[in-house]
Amino acid sequence: MSPFAPDEYRARVRRAQEAMRATGLDALLLTAEADFRYFSGFLTRFWESPTRPWFLILPATGDPVAVIPSIGRALMETTWIRDIRTWRAPDLTDDGISLLARTLSEMTGPAAAIGLPMGMESQLRMPLSDFFTLEAALGDRRLGTDGDIVRTLRMVKSEPEIDAIRAACGVADRAFARLPEILRPGAPFSQVFREFQTLCLSEGADWVPYVAGAAAPDGYADVISPATDAPLAPGDVVMLDTGLMRAGYFCDFDRNASIGPASQMVREAHARLIEATAAGFEAAHAGVTPAELFHAMADIASDGGAAEEAGRFGHGLGQQLTEWPSLIPADHTKLPAGTVLTLEPSVALPGGKIMVHEENIVLREDGAEWLSTPAGPAIPEIPL
Amino acid sequence: MSPFAPDEYRARVRRAQEAMRATGLDALLLTAEADFRYFSGFLTRFWESPTRPWFLILPATGDPVAVIPSIGRALMETTWIRDIRTWRAPDLTDDGISLLARTLSEMTGPAAAIGLPMGMESQLRMPLSDFFTLEAALGDRRLGTDGDIVRTLRMVKSEPEIDAIRAACGVADRAFARLPEILRPGAPFSQVFREFQTLCLSEGADWVPYVAGAAAPDGYADVISPATDAPLAPGDVVMLDTGLMRAGYFCDFDRNASIGPASQMVREAHARLIEATAAGFEAAHAGVTPAELFHAMADIASDGGAAEEAGRFGHGLGQQLTEWPSLIPADHTKLPAGTVLTLEPSVALPGGKIMVHEENIVLREDGAEWLSTPAGPAIPEIPL
Repeated sequence: MSPFAPDEYRARVRRAQEAMRATGLDALLLTAEADFRYFSGFLTRFWESPTRPWFLILPATGDPVAVIPSIGRALMETTWIRDIRTWRAPDLTDDGISLLARTLSEMTGPAAAIGLPMGMESQLRMPLSDFFTLEAALGDRRLGTDGDIVRTLRMVKSEPEIDAIRAACGVADRAFARLPEILRPGAPFSQVFREFQTLCLSEGADWVPYVAGAAAPDGYADVISPATDAPLAPGDVVMLDTGLMRAGYFCDFDRNASIGPASQMVREAHARLIEATAAGFEAAHAGVTPAELFHAMADIASDGGAAEEAGRFGHGLGQQLTEWPSLIPADHTKLPAGTVLTLEPSVALPGGKIMVHEENIVLREDGAEWLSTPAGPAIPEIPL
Repeated sequence: MSPFAPDEYRARVRRAQEAMRATGLDALLLTAEADFRYFSGFLTRFWESPTRPWFLILPATGDPVAVIPSIGRALMETTWIRDIRTWRAPDLTDDGISLLARTLSEMTGPAAAIGLPMGMESQLRMPLSDFFTLEAALGDRRLGTDGDIVRTLRMVKSEPEIDAIRAACGVADRAFARLPEILRPGAPFSQVFREFQTLCLSEGADWVPYVAGAAAPDGYADVISPATDAPLAPGDVVMLDTGLMRAGYFCDFDRNASIGPASQMVREAHARLIEATAAGFEAAHAGVTPAELFHAMADIASDGGAAEEAGRFGHGLGQQLTEWPSLIPADHTKLPAGTVLTLEPSVALPGGKIMVHEENIVLREDGAEWLSTPAGPAIPEIPL
């Protein structure tokens, strides 16, 4: 039931354990879906329910241990994890915390250092009051930062992961190719959203966690809004952005189209976005920094204005819609081969409007590889 | 762009402020999507990206203040929130924390008590390290529990909320009525999942955050697994459970069907589930406790065995797939009118298998009201 064979997960655990020993950590405690799944292969949409916490412990040596609600035992038994300890959740007085504390105490020595992801983009997926209870129950064992070990490991994808992301991109490629079927002038934009999700499913998405978009003349105000019922009108620039999931991995890219002929401004803006994306792609290779990728695109796309309110020109991608790193001027870390990224420049247009474009790539030793099929400079025009 | 008119949000804020004053809280700090949206009306799928934190502050008197990434300003300006403070996220050195600390300090006096949801089902949606940084920056202003104020308020739905949940249930009712179109013997179950999501979209779902299900002869092993590619076979009991969203509110219920004629055991189990659900409905009214609802159903459905590994026989529902409370024997809280619940009994079958059934209701003064259209005792049989 896991997306990959056990060896993939064993290799991830081994890399984490090397990093743990190098930094003096005795165990990792994981609570968030993507971290939990990265090492266990436990794939379920049940995380949508906030009721129950789930815990995975990685000791510095040996196999991981799952401490989970009993409702998850049957599914967990289909993964490579063998040591599964359960409680009947929800429990109003002790929702797994004493079982978790006992297990951590059994797996680590006195004064052990237990790391949790707590840096940027991380989330503690357990009640904060239970975190404090756990801290007290552990006595001289300390809960502290994982030193971003998990985030750093997850940033570099294995070939099976890259294949999974490429497959998700292929689904979206095929769905976007069918946009003329659903971009009918007069169609309520909310209905376009529904039909676009249907296209994604019919082309092979397992589910469609993310769709955003906009439709307005001469650019749009933002890129995170849900759809209104307003009908598509001639002259609208439509942007649809999807993060669909296939076998546990996301793609994340968008496409623009014009309802009827595009204005000269929109045509030029689109061509400039494609040129900026291509410049990002040309600059991309193992060892490039987020800052270098940002500037390669910003030199063409940016005016330092409204377009940069998005805060970045792309980001990592994998088990989550967005992952580390962010393509921003402040990050000078050299990115390794296997880093999967979105290139996502935006351009500012008059009236506080913007247009954005996005593609997905993976860094290779000597360059980069497209995972999405890159769009051409001419904005597609939907016949009226 | 918000699901409701400003008065709905003002009333929610007023109730929260009454509770804050009663418990001596000077402000609430909200970070999680559902809490944030409950008071602001800020509805977007962008929370799917874990990159950026979002903060909403409710003072004990006065209007809420949003402290958010600049990428969200345009959408936030469409809500009733007027005081919007932004930073350009992500920022590697200070991702909104100093702006948040300044705003909290400006809005509260020295030694103020600032409450956060930190009890069961809550999540701190910001990096834990930033939480500690904020705590230090606030000096003698203390971050502590909200005393479950937010969870308690959210449990009781207004009539506009109930209407929204009823509308979501109606979408699922219509999608489930079309199950015979997609439950073809030989169809890969993963394909059935895709087609079921398509049915939900075509019947009016905005998106389909949750689908789970199972297909196996004489009951299934669990209810949280994603689909495999195994084909539906004659004799399979199929269960599909959906949490679809419409206008920001969920339904959450399931349906069983048999591929071809059902066995006598499956027929009886299904009839017993419907009987247990009806008993839960009959017991439901303002003032009933989760324990009473649990026992009303368990007296008919349960044998104290595998079926109870799910941990509960139903739960709250609204902006999230599952909300407070849980229908468990340990909760003796009297539930007010307006509480929306799922009734979700399960029965144990031989070989460690189970069957489950689920409906959605709202508690009224003198009884309960169905929000989903309740299923009959005879399990639907798909002709071969």
